[in-house]
Amino acid sequence: MSNVNSAVIEQMMAHQSIRKFTDDDVPQAMIDTIVAAGQAASSSSFVQVSSVIQVTDKAKRETLQAASGGQVYVGSCPVFLVFCADLKRNQAICAAQGIDMPTGFAEQALIASIDTALFAQNSMLAAESLGLGGVYIGGIRNQPQVVTQCLNLPDQVVPLFGMCLGYPAQDPGLKPRLPLAMVLHQDSYQDLDEQQLTSYNQVLSDYYQQRTKGKLDTNFSEHIEKTLNKEARPHMLGYLQDQGWFTK
Amino acid sequence: MSNVNSAVIEQMMAHQSIRKFTDDDVPQAMIDTIVAAGQAASSSSFVQVSSVIQVTDKAKRETLQAASGGQVYVGSCPVFLVFCADLKRNQAICAAQGIDMPTGFAEQALIASIDTALFAQNSMLAAESLGLGGVYIGGIRNQPQVVTQCLNLPDQVVPLFGMCLGYPAQDPGLKPRLPLAMVLHQDSYQDLDEQQLTSYNQVLSDYYQQRTKGKLDTNFSEHIEKTLNKEARPHMLGYLQDQGWFTK
Repeated sequence: MSNVNSAVIEQMMAHQSIRKFTDDDVPQAMIDTIVAAGQAASSSSFVQVSSVIQVTDKAKRETLQAASGGQVYVGSCPVFLVFCADLKRNQAICAAQGIDMPTGFAEQALIASIDTALFAQNSMLAAESLGLGGVYIGGIRNQPQVVTQCLNLPDQVVPLFGMCLGYPAQDPGLKPRLPLAMVLHQDSYQDLDEQQLTSYNQVLSDYYQQRTKGKLDTNFSEHIEKTLNKEARPHMLGYLQDQGWFTK
Repeated sequence: MSNVNSAVIEQMMAHQSIRKFTDDDVPQAMIDTIVAAGQAASSSSFVQVSSVIQVTDKAKRETLQAASGGQVYVGSCPVFLVFCADLKRNQAICAAQGIDMPTGFAEQALIASIDTALFAQNSMLAAESLGLGGVYIGGIRNQPQVVTQCLNLPDQVVPLFGMCLGYPAQDPGLKPRLPLAMVLHQDSYQDLDEQQLTSYNQVLSDYYQQRTKGKLDTNFSEHIEKTLNKEARPHMLGYLQDQGWFTK
């Protein structure tokens, strides 16, 4: 391992997804700072195509919990944010100038999704640096139409994921990532190296056994097969097109 | 403004895109740490669908520079990384188990793009925390087929963006973001508030005038109209489908 380090990198390396929170309130000033830190990330051509919906309304929280597969922390966590790729604001800015902004390009969807994820990762890390913990909720894409109606999202606004935040009430431990050599390629894409995979499978198997006191006996290959050998939210393309994305 | 703060947040707030670099080399140990910090970000269902191609080969750098609209820093910066959404590795992991992983779902493309952006933003901030600066290069999507061939990317691997890194040789200044009230919504999407926009237009106009000593007289509304009132890389959907994405 390298001895290159910084306080920022230490914060990143300490990341774990937190799904249990204390009852302590998170002040609004903290949430504002977390979102402003997100805004400080890069934006492609400075188009600023992200919006965050903070959901405090209890009935809406329950709707979002049900629409995310019933994950209880979506309903109960101190702070729930929905990160949206928002092309609508700029469409409205163009409309105010009498311009009908072209929409529907796959490229625009890429820009808005990527920029919103850059934004969100700053927000997550900012929250962690303030002593909070959190987890991304991709589950809101289970029923994106329900989320869209619940938050009154117009066309050209796509709710990409939620984020639960609060003070941590658990310490699940750091999950070992793929070896760097499997992720960082030199000049050319390197196909899967089965030896590296076998070695990582053992590392992850040991981790799961230790974390679950022997109850979970699996590895990365099995996890991937179980997770990806099925249809992946097959409603998604139709939903995105309903929102005016991916029509060209 | 709030007085909530941390060293991590200060690092984020100091972000500026750097396109000019000193000749100082960046040690490989630093690049390894920057990529490992990216890996520490969350991954949807822990599928780990990102790959980074570090490009040092001079001829490949020139090819990528030309394919990115001729931005000279793509060719000349000390470190150039291409961040790829990589569904191929997991497809190969499934194939090694005799499984033909289902592909082509829009949802998978969303997961891979979002996770790779979370990864990249950790990497960018990690680099900045080590005294480096950098800029995202969406320009590689100008000619994605050229990038794909240059880096020998198989199907199911999509080069989302590049990243130039090195020691900064410029200090372009902090660009003011949209007011928080335009980005952070409460419980429901709020349509564009023209008063807020007018106020921000003035802020950004003042910034551009100051930064360019009066040469650039524009604002956010004009910038958006100029940037978005045109076709956005109309080849993109076809390219993504060639790579096996967005077929369903």
